Amino acid sequence: MVEPAGEFETIRELFAPLAHPDWGRGLVDDVAVVPSRPGFDLIATKDAIVEGVHFLPDDPMDTVARKLLRVNLSDLAAKGAEPFGYLLACGWSPRLDWPERQAFADGLKQDQAAFGVHLLGGDTVSTPGPASFSLTALGWAPAGAAVSRAGARPGDVVVVTGQIGDGWLGLKAARGGLVLDPDRLQALTAHYRSPEPKTALADLVLAHATASVDVSDGLLADLTHVLEASGVGADLALERLPLSRAGSAWMEERVDPEAALLDLATGGDDYEILMTVRPGAVEALRREVERRHDRLTVLGEITARRGLRVSHQGQPVAVGRTGWRHG
Amino acid sequence: MVEPAGEFETIRELFAPLAHPDWGRGLVDDVAVVPSRPGFDLIATKDAIVEGVHFLPDDPMDTVARKLLRVNLSDLAAKGAEPFGYLLACGWSPRLDWPERQAFADGLKQDQAAFGVHLLGGDTVSTPGPASFSLTALGWAPAGAAVSRAGARPGDVVVVTGQIGDGWLGLKAARGGLVLDPDRLQALTAHYRSPEPKTALADLVLAHATASVDVSDGLLADLTHVLEASGVGADLALERLPLSRAGSAWMEERVDPEAALLDLATGGDDYEILMTVRPGAVEALRREVERRHDRLTVLGEITARRGLRVSHQGQPVAVGRTGWRHG
Repeated sequence: MVEPAGEFETIRELFAPLAHPDWGRGLVDDVAVVPSRPGFDLIATKDAIVEGVHFLPDDPMDTVARKLLRVNLSDLAAKGAEPFGYLLACGWSPRLDWPERQAFADGLKQDQAAFGVHLLGGDTVSTPGPASFSLTALGWAPAGAAVSRAGARPGDVVVVTGQIGDGWLGLKAARGGLVLDPDRLQALTAHYRSPEPKTALADLVLAHATASVDVSDGLLADLTHVLEASGVGADLALERLPLSRAGSAWMEERVDPEAALLDLATGGDDYEILMTVRPGAVEALRREVERRHDRLTVLGEITARRGLRVSHQGQPVAVGRTGWRHG
Repeated sequence: MVEPAGEFETIRELFAPLAHPDWGRGLVDDVAVVPSRPGFDLIATKDAIVEGVHFLPDDPMDTVARKLLRVNLSDLAAKGAEPFGYLLACGWSPRLDWPERQAFADGLKQDQAAFGVHLLGGDTVSTPGPASFSLTALGWAPAGAAVSRAGARPGDVVVVTGQIGDGWLGLKAARGGLVLDPDRLQALTAHYRSPEPKTALADLVLAHATASVDVSDGLLADLTHVLEASGVGADLALERLPLSRAGSAWMEERVDPEAALLDLATGGDDYEILMTVRPGAVEALRREVERRHDRLTVLGEITARRGLRVSHQGQPVAVGRTGWRHG
């Protein structure tokens, strides 16, 4: 496909230095080469983002790049896979000239070092419309061991890592629609722009989870995905939602705590790991998670009866199915 | 990432039936699982296309999907890899409603059967701008055997499969800018919309090529990529360019055959395989290619002296470097 010269230079100057020396072929070839790793499965995931839909036009481009990489690493972590590398497709809008492309590549460089991954290949094109990017992340999991959404069983405990709601509050903060003290606003904006994929917990997912998913669409929507794939239901207590300090501060100002918790539980962009585990495994898992300076919260229980039933302080909460989706 | 309900339905109704039953996890998970294949490397390639840039707004969506898959399969074939599966990211523009999405999925279904590949995973989002799609194709090649761009040596012969120029003429035909008889116009438009990746020749590439690339940017640009990666040069005789019957018919009407041949050699979208082979291997390779009802043409020779030197009927042809790129 014919592209203006800028694309060749983008590859040579900005992306080639990010390429894996062996497997990425320095981006001078059309393909990446990934040697088979006996005893392991290659785990592949792909996310696409569009300017104005998944990121804001004034989000710094280094954080756009880092978030795109991180949301994919989050998918790998939730399956118990260790990251290996990625392929990247860039559709640059007219405003994304050299400095913005450079910032984008710098963001990737920073996160490649942080997460031990390399660029393997991809494509770069120009688009007259909003910018769009897609990234295919590759990782390794022991053969047959990658945790699916489909393994939850009645009696399993529903747990989640970290805290919920900061992604949604962070988006509000980035849009200037949140009144909080400056430090907390900055922490929330940072969380929205550069979420922390729980790569460091991947081995615990492998060891303990019967089913798992990363929280990207929203806690209730992602839990619903697990329930549907597993053919089970769940009872979930909304007041157990783990909040950050910024989230707690925001909650204190709400007149309707139930509605506020529902907003946080449906907002998405959390990139925590939602797992179901056998009851006997919860304490061992919690100890390991806390040893790694993270947090594990029990939210509820898997039931044979299908559907998700949400309660708040013991009272049922009525929310339509689409409520899980749209936040 | 939160998407309108349409995306969930697109996945469930249109894409889930295309998923590999084992490795694609029925698209109900966030990841694909590819078991390692001892003795083989996984070959990965990724192309992105944008409406109005890489395809025309009135191109039928089934052919847009098929072309996207095929250009990636072409990359695999040129490296000697057999196709295995693919991940897909769709960015639907507002005009791409259910019937267009259905046509897109139907096109994929048709080509999955033709090329023996399955959908493994991906993402589907909406975009307010022009539609954009990206596809990551995965294939297998024997460990260490995938042919690179970097192996051409002085004395090697430059050969190309099939014919050159129909992609460029096909684009002109699809845009209504070509005067030819209706059958030929239709053949050219079909070639532009659904090029034939030379998957059936992949094993011959492995067996005979010292370097190879598929002809996508344009014959001269792609040959230049090989020369630069290999650190060599080449002499190429423009009059040897293999033309289709439609291409020959078009040539007969040209007053400046040299300029016309240059247009065909720089136009791109051919998806033939350009290879360098040792002189002693050319005849065996040609016999095998012809036995498979394809064509192999010797275009020139690799030289130690760097740079690409193009001639026409023995006279040097002067073309600027950017001429290779922009066609």
